[in-house]
Amino acid sequence: MKLYELEGLAGRHYSSFSWRTRMALAHKGIAFESCPVRISDKAAIAFSGQGKVPIIQDGETVVSDSWKIAEYLEKQYPDAPSLFGGAIGMGTSRLINAWTDRQLLGTLAAAIAPEIVQIVDEGDSAHLAAGFEKGFGKPMAEFKAGQEASLKRFRQALDPLRATLRNQPFICGAAPAYADYIVFSLLQWARIVSFAPALEEGDAVGAWFERLLDAHGGLGRSEPARTGAGR
Amino acid sequence: MKLYELEGLAGRHYSSFSWRTRMALAHKGIAFESCPVRISDKAAIAFSGQGKVPIIQDGETVVSDSWKIAEYLEKQYPDAPSLFGGAIGMGTSRLINAWTDRQLLGTLAAAIAPEIVQIVDEGDSAHLAAGFEKGFGKPMAEFKAGQEASLKRFRQALDPLRATLRNQPFICGAAPAYADYIVFSLLQWARIVSFAPALEEGDAVGAWFERLLDAHGGLGRSEPARTGAGR
Repeated sequence: MKLYELEGLAGRHYSSFSWRTRMALAHKGIAFESCPVRISDKAAIAFSGQGKVPIIQDGETVVSDSWKIAEYLEKQYPDAPSLFGGAIGMGTSRLINAWTDRQLLGTLAAAIAPEIVQIVDEGDSAHLAAGFEKGFGKPMAEFKAGQEASLKRFRQALDPLRATLRNQPFICGAAPAYADYIVFSLLQWARIVSFAPALEEGDAVGAWFERLLDAHGGLGRSEPARTGAGR
Repeated sequence: MKLYELEGLAGRHYSSFSWRTRMALAHKGIAFESCPVRISDKAAIAFSGQGKVPIIQDGETVVSDSWKIAEYLEKQYPDAPSLFGGAIGMGTSRLINAWTDRQLLGTLAAAIAPEIVQIVDEGDSAHLAAGFEKGFGKPMAEFKAGQEASLKRFRQALDPLRATLRNQPFICGAAPAYADYIVFSLLQWARIVSFAPALEEGDAVGAWFERLLDAHGGLGRSEPARTGAGR
């Protein structure tokens, strides 16, 4: 099993979408080889017939898009622990995926954009900066000033998760599964990329995140948190 | 099976939380007797040991709180169609319940508050108006002017559901289950209470809502949409 994924300077696996796939593979107990890809290097992933990572190559089979990869793993490895727990869990997980991408990811991206462009090479940095400037309609120099306000919005947007964790240790109940990894992937992205604490101290979401960093042999925690000045 | 629930003028079953329970009962194929309760009539539901509806009475067993009722029905009636499809579906549905209550319900309540107080008796109207004024920090007279802006925020907040419905007909996948009924309950509340269209024409969320109005023998559609001037 090969996982094609973004890699930053110092071998950082910083992509939030890649972390959804990493945790899904670990949940299924599938060892994988990480194959680093630069954003600007479309030629390296041309074999997948599209231009985005993560991509998995499982023998002859190539699947791209973190959601489709999770569906594939669930179908292809039905005897390993389930990511969704059946059709209803898969349906509801897809809504949680859309909620994460549409109501959480943007506020966090705005907060950590200036730090993301520091931990990738020059070509990827220019590519990402152009995307952030276009997406948020402001020059990179203006992001830093809005960091605290963006993080505050992000923490507020996590409020439904906070309430849920009053009643159960994981989104998926007593044990983590794919819907946990979806939201986890954002906080892991922030942990790898940013010096700013994504959560306030004492937040129940933080305790949940720590539990997930420890899950599956500590796969999440084995990826170093942000250190160093970057480029 | 008795369902104690709010009732407005002309026998309207207008409570969004009650609709979660109504649809859950229908999903399980359980016939129920509706027992109307006025908000101000705490004595009528003192038997439940708390002060809120919906409440179900199933033989000797009394359960209050729409979420706890769903859990009870799932456990007590395991051979009827499942509301959650297992532990993961139950966990993820709880997050969707919290998302609905914390990021959808408030904006819709602000939009339809002036119409809610029209369709209940004088005592309940005064009680609800006081709650809206305290909750939103403005007098009832000011709600109407903000209706369109509130509805716009509500429609935006539904964006993750809209995206999800591009890939599947229901939140729970190929067929509806409890997570569908949670979000359905808000639109049903608006349909019963308000003349304002909660959704824009052509919205995929509207087509999903229509499918749910037809589900379980048209239980949802059998409740009349708002007509008449009210009090």
